Amino acid sequence: MKTVGYAAHSSDAHMVPYHFERRELRDNDVAIEILYSGVCHSDLHTVNGDWGEQPYPLVPGHEIVGRVMDVGPDVKNYKVGQHVAVGCMVDSCQECDQCHNHEEQFCRNGMTPTYGAPDRNSGETTQGGYSKHIIVREEFVLNVPEKLDLPRVAPILCAGITTFSPLRHWNVKQGSRVGVIGLGGLGHMGVKLAVAMGAEVTVLSRSDKKSQEAKNLGAKGVLVSTDEEAMKEAAGSFDVILDTVPVKHDINIYTPLLDVNGSLVIVGQIGPLEEPVTAPLVLGRRSVAGSLIGGIKETQEVLDFCAEHDIHPECKMIRPDEVNDAFAHLAEGDVAHRFVMDMSTLSVDE
Amino acid sequence: MKTVGYAAHSSDAHMVPYHFERRELRDNDVAIEILYSGVCHSDLHTVNGDWGEQPYPLVPGHEIVGRVMDVGPDVKNYKVGQHVAVGCMVDSCQECDQCHNHEEQFCRNGMTPTYGAPDRNSGETTQGGYSKHIIVREEFVLNVPEKLDLPRVAPILCAGITTFSPLRHWNVKQGSRVGVIGLGGLGHMGVKLAVAMGAEVTVLSRSDKKSQEAKNLGAKGVLVSTDEEAMKEAAGSFDVILDTVPVKHDINIYTPLLDVNGSLVIVGQIGPLEEPVTAPLVLGRRSVAGSLIGGIKETQEVLDFCAEHDIHPECKMIRPDEVNDAFAHLAEGDVAHRFVMDMSTLSVDE
Repeated sequence: MKTVGYAAHSSDAHMVPYHFERRELRDNDVAIEILYSGVCHSDLHTVNGDWGEQPYPLVPGHEIVGRVMDVGPDVKNYKVGQHVAVGCMVDSCQECDQCHNHEEQFCRNGMTPTYGAPDRNSGETTQGGYSKHIIVREEFVLNVPEKLDLPRVAPILCAGITTFSPLRHWNVKQGSRVGVIGLGGLGHMGVKLAVAMGAEVTVLSRSDKKSQEAKNLGAKGVLVSTDEEAMKEAAGSFDVILDTVPVKHDINIYTPLLDVNGSLVIVGQIGPLEEPVTAPLVLGRRSVAGSLIGGIKETQEVLDFCAEHDIHPECKMIRPDEVNDAFAHLAEGDVAHRFVMDMSTLSVDE
Repeated sequence: MKTVGYAAHSSDAHMVPYHFERRELRDNDVAIEILYSGVCHSDLHTVNGDWGEQPYPLVPGHEIVGRVMDVGPDVKNYKVGQHVAVGCMVDSCQECDQCHNHEEQFCRNGMTPTYGAPDRNSGETTQGGYSKHIIVREEFVLNVPEKLDLPRVAPILCAGITTFSPLRHWNVKQGSRVGVIGLGGLGHMGVKLAVAMGAEVTVLSRSDKKSQEAKNLGAKGVLVSTDEEAMKEAAGSFDVILDTVPVKHDINIYTPLLDVNGSLVIVGQIGPLEEPVTAPLVLGRRSVAGSLIGGIKETQEVLDFCAEHDIHPECKMIRPDEVNDAFAHLAEGDVAHRFVMDMSTLSVDE
């Protein structure tokens, strides 16, 4: 199938229109016309080559919302016209313990990311959601609940599940005390989701500039991480802290904020941290952990959870030809919303 | 009560005989004639001032085994002549959620360490087990099961509980795959206890020199941490790794050894670690955590567990006047046994 998207052709991360072919429909495939595509900070990291060499040209994008155009003969759960979504994975072995346990993100044989990885059957490079169409095997297609406002769904597929999964895994519930470091794409979803789970949520930020924004999202307020007195007073007062900071940083200011048995969960950064001191870990049996997106079943759960609790990411709609500007904004720092591309202006015939 | 012990008088950690007074028996106190006293690496750290300034003269020792000499009128569970033990704590508030939850080591108001801290009532400095007698409130006295061989019990009180508690907390059971980094006082007890819990235990060491020793303790063998090929092959093969290394080190060689959801638990070091990379944490939802001794109830459990499974620490018996030599050995590195002082040669009348 002919399609068109925006691709980087080298690690300068400059995105240009790119005409390419999607694979022919396999028996268990769903062909999707992409309507909206979220712009994730990790797209920028990836096309920049920050996380390793990439196969260019590369079409990023793993927050995908669209409409079913066609289905293979073995597809059971999707029909033409239905609103569907695709997240950060498009395949996995489906045979290992992790896949059987609905944690395809930890597939023993390696899950297939939505873009930049070899397709398990053909070996061709997967291409992501900054495009007009995508073809994905049924098991990795998600249903978009009707109650959700379609243009604002896309960021749930990465920012949503990346924060939802650790909140669930670390048992956040009514009355839990949750901290969220950073108020960008991930952080702002972490706040909304934790609030909906009944938690008391505090945003950790280097200044109080985002205080009103945090409150608007449902947080009780901002704890200013540069205010030594306030940080000292807050010692031991969190059960879980989601750390969405996307660059190298010092976690030693955060670990003492955890209560006994508390966990700091890193979801924003892959790389080195500054030297951690172990005293807060040992003296309070605290943990520093990481978390990676979530499985497909859990991704459907976060979509359904958002529908149930009327949660939508804060989205700023852009045209695909504005994606380079969006990247520039993301590179500058926290943006408390997600750029979402409305793909309606993109045409294969252009 | 007059007693005698070995004390450091300054941070040179040189231990000399020291005559001092123990407090008069309070109503809920147990007076203990100390028979055996373990020499823990942390005693050396403490008297050296490595963990902060100390009140000298200081009598260390928190692996204490003895015989009840006298009891206060309110003591319910101990009687004269009974064999008892004292570990790393001698008091806590007994009123907070942590104390009520039998985790006095995390007492909200601060537990009282066995030595070097102000007594909660009198304010005088607590003095530890390198002495002929000790007086401890009943709630912090432990029963020594008769099945245990008395001279070899003392190290259970610190090395035992410090490894038992995280093995329990991280749910080690039949078939669990446990790694133990370091084969000193803590490590060798970690191996024995994990083996008795039914785990498959591997010792991680910089060379294979300790291979036979590891097998003698029940481990399946040694994984040599400097053997890159072997370490690569062992990726993802541990559920829990106990890290008993007592100095600053690099955990990045160990975290990839953990399976998905695995935990590296630091029990040997309070201080900075080298810069950790978060990729193994994020990509496998792995954790780096700390653990601190265990509560009194759990300390009784490890004593009972050792009796049930015929587990005794590897002990090298010394006289109290040999303690400076023992310190010198500990400072040199892993010693796969505990020095235990036989206090019978120590006399108040000397």
